[in-house]
Amino acid sequence: MPKAHKYVYFFGNKKAEGKSEMKHLLGGKGANLAEMVNIRLPVPAGFTITTEVCTYYYSNKNTYPKKLKNDVLKALKNVEKTMKAKFGEADNPLLVSIRSGARASMPGMMDSILNLGLNDTTVKGLIKKTDNPRFAYDSYRRFVQMYGDVVLGLRPVDKTDEDPFEIMLDRKKKKHGFKLDTELSADHLKELVAEFKSAIKKKTGHDFPNDPMEQLWGAIGAVFSSWMNDRAIVYRQLNHIPSEWGTAVNVQSMVFGNMGEDSGTGVAFTRDPATGDNLFYGEYLFNAQGEDVVAGTRTPNPISDLKKENLKIYKELISIRKKLEQHYKDMMDVEFTIQQGKLWMLQCRIGKRTGFAAIKMAVDMVKEKLISKETAISRIEPNQLNQLLRPIFDSKEMKKAINKNKLLAKGLNAGPGAASGRVALSAHDAEEMASKGEKVILVRIETSPEDIKGMNASEGILTARGGMTSHAALVARQMGKVCVAGCSALKIDYKKRNFTVDGKNIVVKEGDYISIDGTTGEVILGKIKTKPSEVIQVLISKTIEGKKSSVYKTYASLMSWADKIRTMNIRTNADQDDQAENALAFGAEGIGLCRTEHMFFGDDRIMLFRKMIVADTLEERKKALAELLPLQRKDFYSIFKVMNGKPVTIRTLDPPLHEFLPHSEKEIKKLASALKIKVSVLTSKIESLSEINPMLGFRGCRIGIIYPEITEMQAQAIIEAACKAKAKGIKVKPEIMIPLVSHINEFKLQEKIVRSVAERVMKKKKMKIDYLVGTMIELPRAALTADQIAEHAEFFSFGTNDLTQTTFGLSRDDAGKFLPLYVEKELLQNDPFEVLDQTGVGQLVKIGTEMGRATRPNLKVGICGEHGGEPASIEFCHNIGLDYVSCSPFRVPIARLAAARAVIFSNDKKVKKIK
Amino acid sequence: MPKAHKYVYFFGNKKAEGKSEMKHLLGGKGANLAEMVNIRLPVPAGFTITTEVCTYYYSNKNTYPKKLKNDVLKALKNVEKTMKAKFGEADNPLLVSIRSGARASMPGMMDSILNLGLNDTTVKGLIKKTDNPRFAYDSYRRFVQMYGDVVLGLRPVDKTDEDPFEIMLDRKKKKHGFKLDTELSADHLKELVAEFKSAIKKKTGHDFPNDPMEQLWGAIGAVFSSWMNDRAIVYRQLNHIPSEWGTAVNVQSMVFGNMGEDSGTGVAFTRDPATGDNLFYGEYLFNAQGEDVVAGTRTPNPISDLKKENLKIYKELISIRKKLEQHYKDMMDVEFTIQQGKLWMLQCRIGKRTGFAAIKMAVDMVKEKLISKETAISRIEPNQLNQLLRPIFDSKEMKKAINKNKLLAKGLNAGPGAASGRVALSAHDAEEMASKGEKVILVRIETSPEDIKGMNASEGILTARGGMTSHAALVARQMGKVCVAGCSALKIDYKKRNFTVDGKNIVVKEGDYISIDGTTGEVILGKIKTKPSEVIQVLISKTIEGKKSSVYKTYASLMSWADKIRTMNIRTNADQDDQAENALAFGAEGIGLCRTEHMFFGDDRIMLFRKMIVADTLEERKKALAELLPLQRKDFYSIFKVMNGKPVTIRTLDPPLHEFLPHSEKEIKKLASALKIKVSVLTSKIESLSEINPMLGFRGCRIGIIYPEITEMQAQAIIEAACKAKAKGIKVKPEIMIPLVSHINEFKLQEKIVRSVAERVMKKKKMKIDYLVGTMIELPRAALTADQIAEHAEFFSFGTNDLTQTTFGLSRDDAGKFLPLYVEKELLQNDPFEVLDQTGVGQLVKIGTEMGRATRPNLKVGICGEHGGEPASIEFCHNIGLDYVSCSPFRVPIARLAAARAVIFSNDKKVKKIK
Repeated sequence: MPKAHKYVYFFGNKKAEGKSEMKHLLGGKGANLAEMVNIRLPVPAGFTITTEVCTYYYSNKNTYPKKLKNDVLKALKNVEKTMKAKFGEADNPLLVSIRSGARASMPGMMDSILNLGLNDTTVKGLIKKTDNPRFAYDSYRRFVQMYGDVVLGLRPVDKTDEDPFEIMLDRKKKKHGFKLDTELSADHLKELVAEFKSAIKKKTGHDFPNDPMEQLWGAIGAVFSSWMNDRAIVYRQLNHIPSEWGTAVNVQSMVFGNMGEDSGTGVAFTRDPATGDNLFYGEYLFNAQGEDVVAGTRTPNPISDLKKENLKIYKELISIRKKLEQHYKDMMDVEFTIQQGKLWMLQCRIGKRTGFAAIKMAVDMVKEKLISKETAISRIEPNQLNQLLRPIFDSKEMKKAINKNKLLAKGLNAGPGAASGRVALSAHDAEEMASKGEKVILVRIETSPEDIKGMNASEGILTARGGMTSHAALVARQMGKVCVAGCSALKIDYKKRNFTVDGKNIVVKEGDYISIDGTTGEVILGKIKTKPSEVIQVLISKTIEGKKSSVYKTYASLMSWADKIRTMNIRTNADQDDQAENALAFGAEGIGLCRTEHMFFGDDRIMLFRKMIVADTLEERKKALAELLPLQRKDFYSIFKVMNGKPVTIRTLDPPLHEFLPHSEKEIKKLASALKIKVSVLTSKIESLSEINPMLGFRGCRIGIIYPEITEMQAQAIIEAACKAKAKGIKVKPEIMIPLVSHINEFKLQEKIVRSVAERVMKKKKMKIDYLVGTMIELPRAALTADQIAEHAEFFSFGTNDLTQTTFGLSRDDAGKFLPLYVEKELLQNDPFEVLDQTGVGQLVKIGTEMGRATRPNLKVGICGEHGGEPASIEFCHNIGLDYVSCSPFRVPIARLAAARAVIFSNDKKVKKIK
Repeated sequence: MPKAHKYVYFFGNKKAEGKSEMKHLLGGKGANLAEMVNIRLPVPAGFTITTEVCTYYYSNKNTYPKKLKNDVLKALKNVEKTMKAKFGEADNPLLVSIRSGARASMPGMMDSILNLGLNDTTVKGLIKKTDNPRFAYDSYRRFVQMYGDVVLGLRPVDKTDEDPFEIMLDRKKKKHGFKLDTELSADHLKELVAEFKSAIKKKTGHDFPNDPMEQLWGAIGAVFSSWMNDRAIVYRQLNHIPSEWGTAVNVQSMVFGNMGEDSGTGVAFTRDPATGDNLFYGEYLFNAQGEDVVAGTRTPNPISDLKKENLKIYKELISIRKKLEQHYKDMMDVEFTIQQGKLWMLQCRIGKRTGFAAIKMAVDMVKEKLISKETAISRIEPNQLNQLLRPIFDSKEMKKAINKNKLLAKGLNAGPGAASGRVALSAHDAEEMASKGEKVILVRIETSPEDIKGMNASEGILTARGGMTSHAALVARQMGKVCVAGCSALKIDYKKRNFTVDGKNIVVKEGDYISIDGTTGEVILGKIKTKPSEVIQVLISKTIEGKKSSVYKTYASLMSWADKIRTMNIRTNADQDDQAENALAFGAEGIGLCRTEHMFFGDDRIMLFRKMIVADTLEERKKALAELLPLQRKDFYSIFKVMNGKPVTIRTLDPPLHEFLPHSEKEIKKLASALKIKVSVLTSKIESLSEINPMLGFRGCRIGIIYPEITEMQAQAIIEAACKAKAKGIKVKPEIMIPLVSHINEFKLQEKIVRSVAERVMKKKKMKIDYLVGTMIELPRAALTADQIAEHAEFFSFGTNDLTQTTFGLSRDDAGKFLPLYVEKELLQNDPFEVLDQTGVGQLVKIGTEMGRATRPNLKVGICGEHGGEPASIEFCHNIGLDYVSCSPFRVPIARLAAARAVIFSNDKKVKKIK
């Protein structure tokens, strides 16, 4: 037996039994209806049957708790009293709507019934009340149609089937030569009511109930039943809504916006949901019902027109707008109806908004002292910041292009922003075209480190293969380039210099214009105008002053609050001084990952580096390294100079050596002649370096262990650059990071090399540099033996890209065959390369951190994988106590915000739970 | 201040202050000398200065504890009394030897001095006592030479330098036209003594000490110093002997076997160390010193001859032999000297032995009631069993071949045993040559699944690339083939059909004979006779009866004891009925891993399988699968039949699909025409399946998730085969294993497929099959989320090969570039693919087991990686509570023994500590 719960909550007459905090019991709609009543807004009276009744219904063979009937009757009496009308009364009938309302919004998934309470008697009363027979019979017709469908089950058998009521309606119009429903007279509608009823009887065997009370219980039952219809079940699965939550049922007095020219209906937002501007925003129609506003058959008027048309109602709405914002402290979305000159509020909820608007409103509301800074920050999804940072397409132009069928394909939204340009099918072509002043989109099957210069010359990068953390995606994000990756519909033919698109009869040639949207993954044929971000113009291009940009001021306020709240440091992954400069502009507090290998890809260096790789003797190798030394030193110096005292974590050589060697016959020939060796010798060298699983092969510290001279050169370049900087009065904090350590002995060996080189250099330069030697934790074994490793390593940086690969046994380069399907089928909730897998990989990060700090309590611990820029992952990093996250420059603001949110959520359990 | 320790332990006169358990204090030699005295063996009296003095010496600037001098004097008095001679006395001088003796044997690493106590006076006494001036002066000469070298430091400067004493000796012989030392007279030797002394004075500045007491302390100091000489330090590092252990110093009365024809010397083993036969085994020489027996300048006589030559001594030795074995309960290695008719025992220690002898002796000693079964088992290193199982080369022939410079190279000892045959450079050639009755050695750069038939046709497999767990090694061990892998000195030229060897001027052509030793890794040019193992003849070939083979009887006894003691089950990895049959003969209790993919490599199947892979539609794929179904069913049926009721774990398809497709142009053409598709279509299919990191790619359950119809077919084949077997009265216990699970959802999806197919089949056949569905834990994430996985999986099998790869981030195919160096440089103590890395990978196995059992207490947990056949890893598996290990058929006996040892060691902490 269930406890004697309260099953029915009345609202109306300036007080309600419920309130907005009772969403779990009353559903979102019911709770907000109650709340509106509580703050004295004009709401048609009604009552909510709780979600507990739904739960009871399903666990008790579709029956109700005993006391429910009485409770409903009692509430109904209250409604009658408030609305001064009586349910089923011939003269003055009360009509009600019955609507579902779950804890989470499930738009359109469940059933509703309007105008309930009408029958052949009460329709007369309605005519009397409104003096409008056509309106009354149209309402009656609509009610019978809805009831027949929802409650009595006369509905299309499948999708191809037509709605039987619509067939009858059409027949009626045809008969009289009408085109529009509105041409039908009251009598026609009356006939239809009868025809509908007899069709129901004939097709379903059910009599249409004339007793309003019978109608009511039938409708309540139908709404509860609709919680388990197929659409609703699928929707809940997709949106992770537990079926145990159940739905509430709202029974509310009907009000009509179509009772004549003194009636109307509208929707409004308390602020502009697109721009966030503090303006009342909405639309209305006179003599219309809500569906007319939505359907677009008539063009609604902007809410500001109401001022002229009905100042009283307008003023009332303005005052309600203020009341709502003062009460809810947020931008609200409302529906209202004007019935014969009286304003009724039918619904209110937190309004949906663009990212841009979310930020603007949150910041404005702090300034208006409506909300706290913490609340502002907790309301902005960090990724929404992208809308402030990235160039975007002009949305009208975009719509036009899509209407013209110019959308070619969709790939992964790997690097946000929008870019238009001519197709270049090789990095070399991209550079050449860019040098002529063309805007270029580099289109490749996949990119490799050799393409870096071409990528840099392009506006955006589009690849046919590879995931969110493929080479193209990683580098693009670091460079701040727009990128659509893994667009598998593209079939690129390098020989023919063009590409085709699966399922489209189109050939895009090199030089043709395309546009890519890295925020949505869309690839569009032709050129679409882009808008640059104001924030970028202030921070990076410096084409406008901060003071002149209100968007920038909004951004700056938000960021300053986030910085005050967050406790984690935010660093950046940057390999070059210009990247470091961008990152500083975005607020980076250090470099968490400087990949030295990227420095070898310049024209002057790649040859030297290749010479080093193909060297047969230690002597040859050392000679090549000696030539690389001054170049590396210069790189490090310029980075130290930019970072001036902020910590810079430099990783020693990591990728497999074969990544630096060419693979095509032509390029091999070229290299052989440049190196003055035989092609066959070079070929066999390349072959000997080729690997079956390069990800698990000869890379990371393994290279430095077999060729200690490489680590020596790099350590020397770092410490010499540091000395040079220090001599010029620049502060330096180098942190030398050994990659891919699996066993403490590997670290010890590399650390010894670094320290002895550093000692030697410092002695020679007669200087002391404060430097650290630490390691990347990117293999499960390193995390599991972190206690041993921390005996020697002064810092840890979790390389969660590789750690994810090894923990899952999943190559991000090869996962394209199955990972998308995994995510689609919800085998995995997220792509683990995008969002840190907290259960598995995260467990290793946690274990590694705890074990490391057990040995070395002051161990500095950070993360430098791509997850360092992903909000949920950042929150996890905060919760397990990391000192910093490091991400690509353009994600630094997002990380700052996410880190602040992590503090707020972990301090405020309540907020966390709701989230 | 050190505590008042006892620093000196006397032995002699039928009682000793020490005993054999005091090795840590007295060293091995000192402890056993004491023990021999305690059991009343005739031992020349002496005393041992403890290892604590050594420790004191090094922590106190090379000084001794104060009381040491007195203690030594007291002990020396005792020796004098016992031996009835006086140290330094002119008439009846006591001579002593000074020898090092550490806790662990460090043969030849430290210094010894013999004949100490001689000077110009005492040498006269020695002449008087022996009536042999030449003997006396020769002893004196040897003493001065040794003392000059060891104590006073007159020695060769480096390796190229000649011994200065030998130069003088040679000069003396030359002067008199002698060739042998024995031609020198007493006077010549007397002259040499004087010349040696003056050379010492001249070269080192030291006077040779005439005072025996000064000699003694000089020698003691020199022995302690030698603990820290370079050789000793390197040896300790290599053998993991802590330098804190220190060495003891043994001072013992000299006895001489070269005092005439009534004197002699010998070494003996209480049983035959090569065969283990219970026979007194040894050699002796009359009128000789120990070094003469060892040096091989004279040919010693077998100990049995002594019976004729000196029955009294012989009987005395026989009785000592018995006493020693009764006392030590083991085969002992002794040195003895007969001085003027009296027998003296100079040393005794546990005798080294072949694996064969170790087993024989241990089993015999149990039967003789000398030791317990547990002791017998703890004395046999499991790998020694290989000597009972594998064919071996005739050792004399082998020696001959090596002397003739026929040793070509050394690779990894990947599949034990010995094999000779003609070189075949392709699997096809191997098959063809074998079909003509030739014995074949398949020589490949590396092998692939396509080579399986050729491998099976060969006696042995030799590869130039790949490690201990490469494809060649894995398959060879499973087939019981001899295998030498990763022999990188081989340069194989498939076009020229030959191979060359680095650093050797030799070309080995296809068809030439070579021999490979998979126990040592040696590759020899030419044919060497092999001996088949008797145990194999009984168990597998059944060419002799068990009762007729004493070796088999020994083996059978040992195994029966091991089976009684062990608690873990031993299963086997077998893919075919014949392998399963072998494994059963070796005592397997089930199949722990049946790799279904190996079943697809038959001629009739590979085409069908390839058809399935290249299928473009579900329909085509299902059609190909339907053709494979009856073949798989037949395979499973025949395995169930062989295993009759023993559990059979069958893994669903695991390897990447591209492994089944050809890669050479020629083969692609062939396949395309067989499949009736265009070459270009097939090529693009192969390309689309190619992966950057196949190890981390589209394989394991990922295939079954994308193509559920494959899992369906396999489940159907398994359950149908089980039904067929059951119908014929065969018991069946199928365990269906899902590979490469990283997330519980993957398992759930595959489990659902398996169970629904099983239900369908059982319903149709109207039968009930008891089957389990479980998973391989071979990814770190699976181990870390084992609690979730165990909610559904009914068993776990740790795939430690892949788990090692992912935990270390190390591809076993690519590790050849650095892993050997890692092991060589002791960055890693072992190749983690050979010996389970307990700290890292083992931690995951432990975590996974504990978490899994927390959810499902009766979870069956095993291991089926290669480590399942490696003794140390098996011990680990026992200690963390696994239910079974599974290994290749030929390692089953080894695993049975190792599992028994694990029980003994974990029960008996003492044994464990000593180990």
